[in-house]
Amino acid sequence: MKKILAEILTIGDEILYGQITDTNSQWISAELDSIGIKVIRKTTVGDTEDEILDAFSEADERADLVIITGGLGPTNDDLTMPMLAKYFGSDIVHNQEVHDHVKHFFESRGLTFTELNKGQAMVPEIAQVLHNELGTAPGTWYEQNDKVFISLPGVPHEMKNIMTTHALPKIREYFHTATIYHKVIKTVGIGESFLADKIKDWEERLPNHISLAYLPSVGQVKLRLTAVGENKDSLQTDVENEIDKVLPKIEKYTFGYNKTTLEEAIGELLIKENKTIAFAESCTGGYIQHKITTIGGSSRYFQGGLVPYHNELKIGQLGVKEETLKAHGAVSEECASEMANRVREKFSADIGASSTGIAGPDGGTPEKPVGTVWIAYADGKQTITKKLQLTNNRVLNIELTEIAVLNLVRKSLRT
Amino acid sequence: MKKILAEILTIGDEILYGQITDTNSQWISAELDSIGIKVIRKTTVGDTEDEILDAFSEADERADLVIITGGLGPTNDDLTMPMLAKYFGSDIVHNQEVHDHVKHFFESRGLTFTELNKGQAMVPEIAQVLHNELGTAPGTWYEQNDKVFISLPGVPHEMKNIMTTHALPKIREYFHTATIYHKVIKTVGIGESFLADKIKDWEERLPNHISLAYLPSVGQVKLRLTAVGENKDSLQTDVENEIDKVLPKIEKYTFGYNKTTLEEAIGELLIKENKTIAFAESCTGGYIQHKITTIGGSSRYFQGGLVPYHNELKIGQLGVKEETLKAHGAVSEECASEMANRVREKFSADIGASSTGIAGPDGGTPEKPVGTVWIAYADGKQTITKKLQLTNNRVLNIELTEIAVLNLVRKSLRT
Repeated sequence: MKKILAEILTIGDEILYGQITDTNSQWISAELDSIGIKVIRKTTVGDTEDEILDAFSEADERADLVIITGGLGPTNDDLTMPMLAKYFGSDIVHNQEVHDHVKHFFESRGLTFTELNKGQAMVPEIAQVLHNELGTAPGTWYEQNDKVFISLPGVPHEMKNIMTTHALPKIREYFHTATIYHKVIKTVGIGESFLADKIKDWEERLPNHISLAYLPSVGQVKLRLTAVGENKDSLQTDVENEIDKVLPKIEKYTFGYNKTTLEEAIGELLIKENKTIAFAESCTGGYIQHKITTIGGSSRYFQGGLVPYHNELKIGQLGVKEETLKAHGAVSEECASEMANRVREKFSADIGASSTGIAGPDGGTPEKPVGTVWIAYADGKQTITKKLQLTNNRVLNIELTEIAVLNLVRKSLRT
Repeated sequence: MKKILAEILTIGDEILYGQITDTNSQWISAELDSIGIKVIRKTTVGDTEDEILDAFSEADERADLVIITGGLGPTNDDLTMPMLAKYFGSDIVHNQEVHDHVKHFFESRGLTFTELNKGQAMVPEIAQVLHNELGTAPGTWYEQNDKVFISLPGVPHEMKNIMTTHALPKIREYFHTATIYHKVIKTVGIGESFLADKIKDWEERLPNHISLAYLPSVGQVKLRLTAVGENKDSLQTDVENEIDKVLPKIEKYTFGYNKTTLEEAIGELLIKENKTIAFAESCTGGYIQHKITTIGGSSRYFQGGLVPYHNELKIGQLGVKEETLKAHGAVSEECASEMANRVREKFSADIGASSTGIAGPDGGTPEKPVGTVWIAYADGKQTITKKLQLTNNRVLNIELTEIAVLNLVRKSLRT
């Protein structure tokens, strides 16, 4: 089966000039990918006639399907519709169905239907209208020389609704799209190159219809397996078989699949083990507890915690011994260990975890430079501590410590 | 002066396939815009040799400056560096400086410097290296026929650091960019349309060489003034004059200028007033303390705080009265007020602030629906409380509450 190629074209000065982030093209890519259409390029151009026409003809040469968002507003700087008419050599005509919808849209909201709004019912004659239930600018569909152009509004919820309701079903029918199956393995605590080294042999033996991508982010690496073929069930079986083969090599780094986050994975482990947790955070300043509480229902396992930023509070509020701080300092294995044990007791949790370190940019010493961090886990039976040597970047150090603490908890819960 | 045109080229299957959002190109656009360079196109292509080479030559034809991000990892699917070498007809050679940096980068973190990592020191011979302090993949700079290509890693904090430290100064020097002066007024606690209404008359009377942009984000609106001309000092004077005129209309919403964050502004106010602060966070789960501690040196004014997520901890650890919780519930003015006062006392701070609410998605009741939040400020002389009625989105509610608490502290400190 011939692979269908697509391009996504975003039109608008506000995207070019960095005033707003384009999230539309990411969403469209993922949707097309899920029906086996390969996006080969994304392009953004401004509200300029020549730029738009050039982008049309370039995309037309390379792709089978061109999806355009933006440039459909009622003002003069919105050029998508007239440029599509020009490109396809079509007149722009009044469309009664769109007119009635836009009129109803305004009047049902108690707004005046102005001359400017009437312009939104002007559509190239050769276009098929894709109805916009949630807004006023219609989607439009163009066919020429076995290629399809689709124009959609830039407002995300309108675009998504037209795509899901009208455009995607029409695309699947027109192109008789192939079947694709994805699964993402999520890992933590190992760098991309080390991971690649561990699974090299397996990667080299992957069957031709399955491909692998490494997607690194701070402290984590995602492995995405993509299978292309005819039958969804058999693709899924093929991918699961490959995961079964690779998992023994990377099991200790794997915390979940697809969109599962590390904090969700820990929540699930805690629920499964029927355990509660509390945190004492110094250098992470509340960030671990923030991540834990972004998950709805985290009150089932998260008791609460302390941010004893000043050393007197580590003693007075948390119960770390004054001698410990005097003998070893706050950034020490001993202090991290006591913090984890004390917060566990004081907050009546099964597990306590802690962080203490020098996030930077100042505060380092020759023995304890910026980026020196101690973390600890305690569950009443055992205390596990770990030293991290991180970067000079404060925000990055906070994030890396958070991931290291959650990973320490995850590993301890698994064993 | 001839306008310098730029294109931004993003390389990576993970962006094309919609697995991650490209935020880099927005940031780069805004930075180039701020030095008067016009971005005319953004393109994303996958990890495919021909696609990358085509994109290079197309951008080369249209633009004076081409900025490329991504495709610099150590694995085989990362093609940017070999394609740049091929495009500029240059050999790839071993760069000792990069080699030493990468080796140190790994070894100082207790990691092994592998064969795969050594590959990151291979750089096109004609390239000038832009040093990557925060990572391993170097930035590179190419000059040919009065045009400049810059290749940067895709990891946002590495890319931004190389751009700010090395690439932008070099770009300004190479292209003798026009003189532009920007100043951003940062506001909180007022929506974009209400702000626009307050400053309408002033905005209409702005001189021709000064333009205004509204840049809204969650809970905040930035007003960016841009002056274009010849002489930096006179542009600055013109912009300051306009700010003097508009400030009386918006002073109570204005917390700072340019890159000042709300948490920085509060830190400065606390230092100026010589006051310390502590937080008791329920529904924000540590997020306020996290934001406060992202600022280096925050230990000068931040004592610490509690996240008493469970009600027993509000009583046992913080000292909220059991009767208060029984009579009014945890999400109440009385509870927020006690939390702020108790954390202030227990943590020996001048100021205490608190949050308690229903972040969602579950846990709402008819009287207290999801999004109901109480916040409080206490300084020993007065207690100020405020009720918020927010959204159904948990993460957004946490963020909006954090901003509201910090704004309450800011307003109380100013008076």
